[in-house]
Amino acid sequence: TDDRCSGVLPELYFSRETLDRQSDKRTDKTWLEAQQSDPNTVYLLFSNVNPMVSRCEEDKSSEVLDKLCRFRYDEVKDLIQKPKTKLIFLGVEKKKPPSSCSQVQEGSWEPPAWFAVGTDEDATELLKRCREDNCFFPESPNRNLLKFSEEEAGIVAHARSVLVWHDRYSFCPTCGSGTSLEEGGHKRRCLNSECRSLKGVHNTCYPRVDPVVIMLVVHPDRNQCLLGRKKSFPVGMFSCLAGFIEPGEAIEDAVRREVEEESGVKVGLVRYICSQPWPMPSNLMIGCLAIATSTNIKVDQNEIEEAQWFTRQQIAESLHRGANPALMLPPSQTIAHQLIRYWICKNANL
Amino acid sequence: TDDRCSGVLPELYFSRETLDRQSDKRTDKTWLEAQQSDPNTVYLLFSNVNPMVSRCEEDKSSEVLDKLCRFRYDEVKDLIQKPKTKLIFLGVEKKKPPSSCSQVQEGSWEPPAWFAVGTDEDATELLKRCREDNCFFPESPNRNLLKFSEEEAGIVAHARSVLVWHDRYSFCPTCGSGTSLEEGGHKRRCLNSECRSLKGVHNTCYPRVDPVVIMLVVHPDRNQCLLGRKKSFPVGMFSCLAGFIEPGEAIEDAVRREVEEESGVKVGLVRYICSQPWPMPSNLMIGCLAIATSTNIKVDQNEIEEAQWFTRQQIAESLHRGANPALMLPPSQTIAHQLIRYWICKNANL
Ligand SMILES: Nc1ncnc2c1ncn2[C@@H]1O[C@H](COP(=O)(O)O)[C@@H](O)[C@H]1O
Ligand SMILES: Nc1ncnc2c1ncn2[C@@H]1O[C@H](COP(=O)(O)O)[C@@H](O)[C@H]1O
Ligand SMILES: [Mg+2]
Ligand SMILES: [Mg+2]
Ligand SMILES: [Mg+2]
Ligand SMILES: [Mg+2]
Ligand SMILES: [Mg+2]
Ligand SMILES: [Mg+2]
Ligand SMILES: [Zn+2]
Ligand SMILES: [Zn+2]
Repeated sequence: TDDRCSGVLPELYFSRETLDRQSDKRTDKTWLEAQQSDPNTVYLLFSNVNPMVSRCEEDKSSEVLDKLCRFRYDEVKDLIQKPKTKLIFLGVEKKKPPSSCSQVQEGSWEPPAWFAVGTDEDATELLKRCREDNCFFPESPNRNLLKFSEEEAGIVAHARSVLVWHDRYSFCPTCGSGTSLEEGGHKRRCLNSECRSLKGVHNTCYPRVDPVVIMLVVHPDRNQCLLGRKKSFPVGMFSCLAGFIEPGEAIEDAVRREVEEESGVKVGLVRYICSQPWPMPSNLMIGCLAIATSTNIKVDQNEIEEAQWFTRQQIAESLHRGANPALMLPPSQTIAHQLIRYWICKNANL
Repeated sequence: TDDRCSGVLPELYFSRETLDRQSDKRTDKTWLEAQQSDPNTVYLLFSNVNPMVSRCEEDKSSEVLDKLCRFRYDEVKDLIQKPKTKLIFLGVEKKKPPSSCSQVQEGSWEPPAWFAVGTDEDATELLKRCREDNCFFPESPNRNLLKFSEEEAGIVAHARSVLVWHDRYSFCPTCGSGTSLEEGGHKRRCLNSECRSLKGVHNTCYPRVDPVVIMLVVHPDRNQCLLGRKKSFPVGMFSCLAGFIEPGEAIEDAVRREVEEESGVKVGLVRYICSQPWPMPSNLMIGCLAIATSTNIKVDQNEIEEAQWFTRQQIAESLHRGANPALMLPPSQTIAHQLIRYWICKNANL
């Protein structure tokens, strides 16, 4: 029995699959075109890689909520037709039709499709298209993309990862030629008909997802955990160590290597806990608990400014008090936060 | 307590970290150059992306063993100096110095470094460089790369994944310019000094690793499992379903989506079991057990020719008898095989 990801662990931010991706429809041009001009279709506007949002009044929980601005076909038709625009088919709504809907009887009801529109048109002009006030494009990605509802965060994760890929991979890495967008924005095809990328299946045509290990390292005494800070972190903030999985490496080995590289601490047992897509730019965070077999810390000064063992009590206080000047943990939307919380709640028995 | 990957599950093929990658040395040009000309340094020769091997007599276990051909600096010096050659620093041996070694007393002993040399020189000419007989470059990748010892398989996984990346990503995907190799072959830098890829950190400069979910789907009755076959499989062979993790997707959601896409079966609980690097070309296989919540099969004809529920007994017979004409399972080097074996051994309690 496995209650890791239920109970103690909440659903992770960016993880809700609000839409049904219907990946088989990506190659169905007729269907896609019909959906594009359907009046029920929902369009999201991205200025390059960031979505247009409207900021809502702070609600009772005193949290700011950003909502995706939604557009209809007529409002974005001109943009879609521009050759430089990237149109991504995100999927269709999972919800059932309203029982009163007459199309249901006729059998013609289909759940609305969603598309992301990536454009490099002037951002100020784009904002004028929205009927709502307080609209803007969140800029420096990290913190600014953590203010969505759970439903919308999942959609942003998908759309932003794909758009960032288009933004950085518009040339064929195999031959340097231009490429064109295909399959509802989930493929790029090389325009050079002689290119090797067109023969057989290889990964250059498909969006890139970078797997990253992120781990809470537990002290051999089981009562302390290892957190580190990068120079770029706000004062007092510490978080889990993390690093890119390298070619030819399994998850557990990447955990051991990155922990030793960054902190000098050796790790034995590694246990996978949960994963989270992280669309800055397009990572898959693979969250683990790891049991240290040594305790001496020697940080890799390039990456980590400081690493330290923290007691359960220090962590619990920081989690419950919120703002603790001595130790600030990453926000609840991060898998780092959830790994730390998991360890505190589950008594650290791996 | 967690015995998943010990006990029942053996170490997975391609997963042994025989070398210490010492990634911090990749930026140390002086150190790297000193290692290159060191007489103890080991070089592996790759004809593009496949390693030169010598085939050994079938040993007692009647299994063929392929061994990597090892070269010294003097034997490959000319190749290394060619501008088109790709030189990859793989790491240093983990083994301790021999106690008799005089350099140990002087404190100057260092474990030998290993490099992979990727070249497009004529393969027949390359083979003449080897002192051993029966040398060749295994061609169609899959089955041919499954004949190494555990130690060497891990090295091949690392080297081949990186070389395949160089082979397919020699142009900058952001601007289409040429790129040059850096950091011991673990980075490519765009030669266009204006390129965006040189500002900030993005993934275009780094080797690509594609995360893939591979899952054994267990029937709600816990006594059957779902296997499928691609058209390209040998007659009678069935394996686990698998698929690429998409942008903006967590591991568990990718499992649910791929199973439903490929077989029509719906999945509830998903449990991570183990992972395996798979260097064809550069995947990270993430192995899971998944509990079905529906049983009707409807295959996606594009990808899967047939999918079927198999009883524990059918699986056990195939595992133990070896060649069973009715059901052939993938070889023991694959994570698919190990997931199936795990399920049989562990009584299927997730
Ligand atoms: N796919 C990738 N994307 C971004 N940076 C990478 C990637 N792979 C390796 N790196 C390097 O890894 C560093 C971050 O270290 P770490 O996250 O600990 O692996 C970055 O500064 C890059 O130099
Ligand atoms: N990174 C990738 N490398 C290769 N094929 C991919 C990749 N991403 C998506 N695909 C597509 O996925 C198909 C295989 O399906 P699946 O393994 O079930 O996801 C391939 O035929 C490609 O069309
Ligand atoms: Mg790293
Ligand atoms: Mg690191
Ligand atoms: Mg790191
Ligand atoms: Mg599939
Ligand atoms: Mg797929
Ligand atoms: Mg598949
Ligand atoms: Zn090309
Ligand atoms: Zn460039």
